[in-house]
Amino acid sequence: MSRIKCTISYDGSGFAGYQVQPGQRTVQAELEKALASIHKSRPVKTAASGRTDAGVHAMGQVIHFDTDLSIPEEKWPAALNSLLPDDISVLKAERAQPDFHARFSAKEKEYRYRIYFSDVRSPFKHHYACMVRFPLDMEAMEEAAESVLGTHDFTSFCSAKTEVEDKIRTLKEIEFLRKEGELVIRFTGDGFLYNMVRILTGTLLEIGSGKRAPGEMRKILEKRNRIFAGKTAPPQGLYLWKVSYGGTG
Amino acid sequence: MSRIKCTISYDGSGFAGYQVQPGQRTVQAELEKALASIHKSRPVKTAASGRTDAGVHAMGQVIHFDTDLSIPEEKWPAALNSLLPDDISVLKAERAQPDFHARFSAKEKEYRYRIYFSDVRSPFKHHYACMVRFPLDMEAMEEAAESVLGTHDFTSFCSAKTEVEDKIRTLKEIEFLRKEGELVIRFTGDGFLYNMVRILTGTLLEIGSGKRAPGEMRKILEKRNRIFAGKTAPPQGLYLWKVSYGGTG
Repeated sequence: MSRIKCTISYDGSGFAGYQVQPGQRTVQAELEKALASIHKSRPVKTAASGRTDAGVHAMGQVIHFDTDLSIPEEKWPAALNSLLPDDISVLKAERAQPDFHARFSAKEKEYRYRIYFSDVRSPFKHHYACMVRFPLDMEAMEEAAESVLGTHDFTSFCSAKTEVEDKIRTLKEIEFLRKEGELVIRFTGDGFLYNMVRILTGTLLEIGSGKRAPGEMRKILEKRNRIFAGKTAPPQGLYLWKVSYGGTG
Repeated sequence: MSRIKCTISYDGSGFAGYQVQPGQRTVQAELEKALASIHKSRPVKTAASGRTDAGVHAMGQVIHFDTDLSIPEEKWPAALNSLLPDDISVLKAERAQPDFHARFSAKEKEYRYRIYFSDVRSPFKHHYACMVRFPLDMEAMEEAAESVLGTHDFTSFCSAKTEVEDKIRTLKEIEFLRKEGELVIRFTGDGFLYNMVRILTGTLLEIGSGKRAPGEMRKILEKRNRIFAGKTAPPQGLYLWKVSYGGTG
């Protein structure tokens, strides 16, 4: 048996999310279908670094699976891509240590949230970014972002639907990248709670539009209650960008 | 009655092309459905600067229609966009002269063909660019492009399926724009024959990959026969970028 780690990218528009759900088209189901096909119809289980919701994209999702086939690691992407639908692509495959786990071995994650400024819907950006009609106060957003960096209980920025008990996470960086009518917000941390990036983004957008003062961000954090934060930003702007595993990756 | 000129953008991935075809989802059919709905179910005919094939995109297609409604020109985009599907957007509307015609008044057209260099399919570019796995000899492509600029009979670079008799067109410019793992080829001319940009691109790609010498481009042109040119490049890389109408536009 060997453990294979794959870095995959997918356009989330056509999926009901990452995780297998009966009767729904999901990324995991497509991956496991392709793997079963390579393994002569034997089922192959996959584990991912984390789930993504319907409409959320991935540039660098990481998964692993175990195989008894002796396919060289560099051949796995082409083998899987020939069986996968066009909206999923295996970018890279590597042999991993037997104790490597896509979820539990992850040391750091990077998400990006993409915003475009326009009065009119763009047919090309509609599924890939969130449209904002008004200019944003970048200074206010930067000040607010700065105030929640570090290790905190992020209950206020977590969907109430979660089952996770430990809400303490370390938010390492929030960076604002501007280019040609767009804004990308880059979040890095040791891990993120359910909807955390989208709720942080939604709250930052309310601050950037002047609806709330930048000082509110820290106060919301301290409330430890979801109802005080802003709206959950829509899924189509969100990208799981990179998962890092440190030296052992 | 007033004549309205609209600049529209669409993602061609989900359409069987621009023009109405029975039983197919087309851009024109969606536009005319939205217009009929605004006109209390009365049919409204549209004319476009030209058709685009299935999978071909538009950043700046131009259409016109006549209306007896007194909606101010600046209100038309929002009125139509609220009724149109997400993959079409009206960017701009203007009142035009009664003799303006989206097709016959056009003075110049610009198309762009987008290529990305990769060994692995990108789920985000798959419907929006053509993947090329090998490096291209840009000097050879530029030399070849240069040799077909000007006014010529472009029969060799026109689909045999066309019904147009006059194959003389003026190709004003072919420009190569490189950026971050991509190549965009910009074509401007007074008009383009059926599949002309895709056949020019397909032939340039064969020259760029070393399959043909740059000097062949001019020889193919002089043959006036489609069979001598290269393959038709795939539709998903092609964008109708801009239609210009000169001073009267």
